[in-house]
Amino acid sequence: MNYFDFQPQNNKKLPLYEQLYRFLISSIQNGSLKEGEKLPSKRQMADLLKISINTIENAYGMLVAEGYIKARPKSGYFVCAITEPVATKKTSKRKEWSPPPNLPVSFLYDFHTGAVDTTFFPYATWAKITKEIMADNRQLLNHGHPQGDSCLREALCQQVAEMRGIFCQPEQIIVGAGSEYLLSLMIQILPTQSVFAMENPGYGKNYHIIRNHGRKICPIPLDSEGMQVEQLAQTNANIAYITPSHQFPMGMVMPINRRMQLLHWACEQKNRYLIEDDYDGEFRFHGRPIPALKGLESNDKVIYCSTFSKSFAPSIRIAYMILPETLLAIYKKNFSSYACSVSRFEQHVLYRFLKEGHYNRHLNRMRTIYRGRKEKLTEELRSLPQSNKIMIIGENAGLHLLLQIGNGMNEAQLVKSAAQVGVRVYGLSQYCPVATPIPSNWVVLGYAALEQGEIEAAVRLLAKAWFE
Amino acid sequence: MNYFDFQPQNNKKLPLYEQLYRFLISSIQNGSLKEGEKLPSKRQMADLLKISINTIENAYGMLVAEGYIKARPKSGYFVCAITEPVATKKTSKRKEWSPPPNLPVSFLYDFHTGAVDTTFFPYATWAKITKEIMADNRQLLNHGHPQGDSCLREALCQQVAEMRGIFCQPEQIIVGAGSEYLLSLMIQILPTQSVFAMENPGYGKNYHIIRNHGRKICPIPLDSEGMQVEQLAQTNANIAYITPSHQFPMGMVMPINRRMQLLHWACEQKNRYLIEDDYDGEFRFHGRPIPALKGLESNDKVIYCSTFSKSFAPSIRIAYMILPETLLAIYKKNFSSYACSVSRFEQHVLYRFLKEGHYNRHLNRMRTIYRGRKEKLTEELRSLPQSNKIMIIGENAGLHLLLQIGNGMNEAQLVKSAAQVGVRVYGLSQYCPVATPIPSNWVVLGYAALEQGEIEAAVRLLAKAWFE
Repeated sequence: MNYFDFQPQNNKKLPLYEQLYRFLISSIQNGSLKEGEKLPSKRQMADLLKISINTIENAYGMLVAEGYIKARPKSGYFVCAITEPVATKKTSKRKEWSPPPNLPVSFLYDFHTGAVDTTFFPYATWAKITKEIMADNRQLLNHGHPQGDSCLREALCQQVAEMRGIFCQPEQIIVGAGSEYLLSLMIQILPTQSVFAMENPGYGKNYHIIRNHGRKICPIPLDSEGMQVEQLAQTNANIAYITPSHQFPMGMVMPINRRMQLLHWACEQKNRYLIEDDYDGEFRFHGRPIPALKGLESNDKVIYCSTFSKSFAPSIRIAYMILPETLLAIYKKNFSSYACSVSRFEQHVLYRFLKEGHYNRHLNRMRTIYRGRKEKLTEELRSLPQSNKIMIIGENAGLHLLLQIGNGMNEAQLVKSAAQVGVRVYGLSQYCPVATPIPSNWVVLGYAALEQGEIEAAVRLLAKAWFE
Repeated sequence: MNYFDFQPQNNKKLPLYEQLYRFLISSIQNGSLKEGEKLPSKRQMADLLKISINTIENAYGMLVAEGYIKARPKSGYFVCAITEPVATKKTSKRKEWSPPPNLPVSFLYDFHTGAVDTTFFPYATWAKITKEIMADNRQLLNHGHPQGDSCLREALCQQVAEMRGIFCQPEQIIVGAGSEYLLSLMIQILPTQSVFAMENPGYGKNYHIIRNHGRKICPIPLDSEGMQVEQLAQTNANIAYITPSHQFPMGMVMPINRRMQLLHWACEQKNRYLIEDDYDGEFRFHGRPIPALKGLESNDKVIYCSTFSKSFAPSIRIAYMILPETLLAIYKKNFSSYACSVSRFEQHVLYRFLKEGHYNRHLNRMRTIYRGRKEKLTEELRSLPQSNKIMIIGENAGLHLLLQIGNGMNEAQLVKSAAQVGVRVYGLSQYCPVATPIPSNWVVLGYAALEQGEIEAAVRLLAKAWFE
């Protein structure tokens, strides 16, 4: 080994000790320094290379720490035995980052069901409360309660009691970073062999989440009241996942009788549960919101979950679920070491939003705005000369409705001809995670993100596409 | 049915229509209104009860919406067939919420390994940037990229390149709400039949997470270099979960040779991967941090994950992982519909923290502070008259160290006698998720949250407990 091969560079970014360290590593790797070979002592090396002993010490120290060389007391430094690296695949060059392909920009109006209008989000209040919370709450940097801070859970209890007719204890509530996170947790809390009955048509993402956990799914067809209980009873499913306040995407509200039937089904066996997904239950436009199914039961069979993504903003990842006592016990046993996945600062901002009435004010405001949009959409459709060929379904609640178009076009043709005039609508079959016999001429329109003027213009374009 | 039984109350909280609605529901429930029975028309009912027709309309509307009654065109309102509710269990009364039982408050000093000192967190800068981000970024209310916003992933790429010697693409990075969330995602991305080799002793929470997903675990004993590869090779595990920068809790740094051996093991079969958990790799006190194992490989076999919980604050739930290309493809196929679980506002605050150098300044500061504490602790221990009975292990990195105490006490006695003088230390066996032959007289001390003065006082108490 010829140590004079070491050629120090004047390089501010790479200090001398790092250069020596790298030189010695490559010498070990290329075999000039062999296993068991003794290195010069620090003093010798410093003299040899005319660099300070400190530099040598640093380089040797790093090589020892990483296991390239070892120090034998009173004897010196020796090269360790090091397994050859694995033959390398060709490293791919670093590609420039590019965003994933987006939707074609050619749509003038998009009736996407996932969109909400964040224009009216009380941003200033949110920012002000955030600032206040951050001003004097250093203690929020430390761990909070795994289920979410208790002030927030107390406020959520009050909220669901007043708005959804559910009476529960804060202890039953688990706050998490979005409903996907909570569904994932639910799946793990429920018995391992669980089979999930899912609405079909239904929310495709939940099918994904359940399958990604390796759980089995039984898709259950709907009738005008929602999930068909007789069909459910014929499967081996023990969990039924439902959206009773406003079925996604069909829009029906589950009537009391079907709710009772599902509760009966759940009570027949110990391991049966209902998951009530109340994703947009706040948005009902006539009378007050339909009480939650969870509020009807007293047998601890319903897991209730809701999210702030629809009522607030998609990027505010706060959802919560209410667990029956039996499942709460399992959660506490196996999951209570998991930290709450929502930042404590955001938890406290939301808490103040609820407590100070900002949230309900915002909801009322959005309900009025969304009702206006819904009415605009239905009025525009009903005032078309061809309105007798349009049936509107599921318009009483939620942020989307369905249209059955009797112009002879099938779903694909309806979607395509709308796209040709710059309007994006969605075929019902897109919401069927498994093939189902569904009407062939239905489309889904989410109207939450379109202003009334836009809706008017969009309907005119749709009329052109579908009837001219 | 006698409708005059309806006794309206003067109740501001319960409007008249809601009172009528409730009255009619209870009449249906108690059988005074029977299935199929016709209700008075709205006009008749209004005359009968001397209340406005609007009120009747509201009440009937709600009953129709919830499926208690139905309207038959030109014929009137009829009571629906409703399944009896399930016989109810006795409802437990709402208990007062009480926080979960805490640690006894009698500890003066707690050497908890999970604690960090948030006193030095640059709170003012964090709050200022949060305020700035919130000031003009309304668009952050909408959905961001599922893997985390690209500006943050670019900054993380740069960070791991400079600090950990890893060269990756932003596309490979997934940002999530804490390392627990990401491990859960990893488990689902890895082949379903995967068996996880885990360090023993190791981090118990990760054992939990893997078991909660129903995956099998092979605990692998350690030697002075970390996970024993020969033992690993004898199992059917295909995933090895390791903490090479600073083994938790034993504290050793995995030398280059063991790293190479593990990479060889991983490359032997297609479905084998290493998970490198770099939970406190930033905290090395002599020389620069040990480069990550991920930086050594070119065969795409290492999933790297790291968190900001240790370096920032436990309640800031931001972690990230770097996926090999093969697993990234699976992620994109099955998981890219999942929204990012971290609030976009916090993502952008962290991005600016990284970009503007606040993060590295904070790290350097904390490294100095923690080194001071570690040196104080080791000096105090070494200057005890009984220091020859104390062996200090794993002190070069991370935020905890181990002590082997040769005073004849076993682990339980060491912990108990320390508790009696008000100091909390942790027995090594607590960190063995499965029974392992470990030395019987080792304790673990996390020193990150104790100031130098506290450390001095705590060591004096420990000396009293253990040697007097």
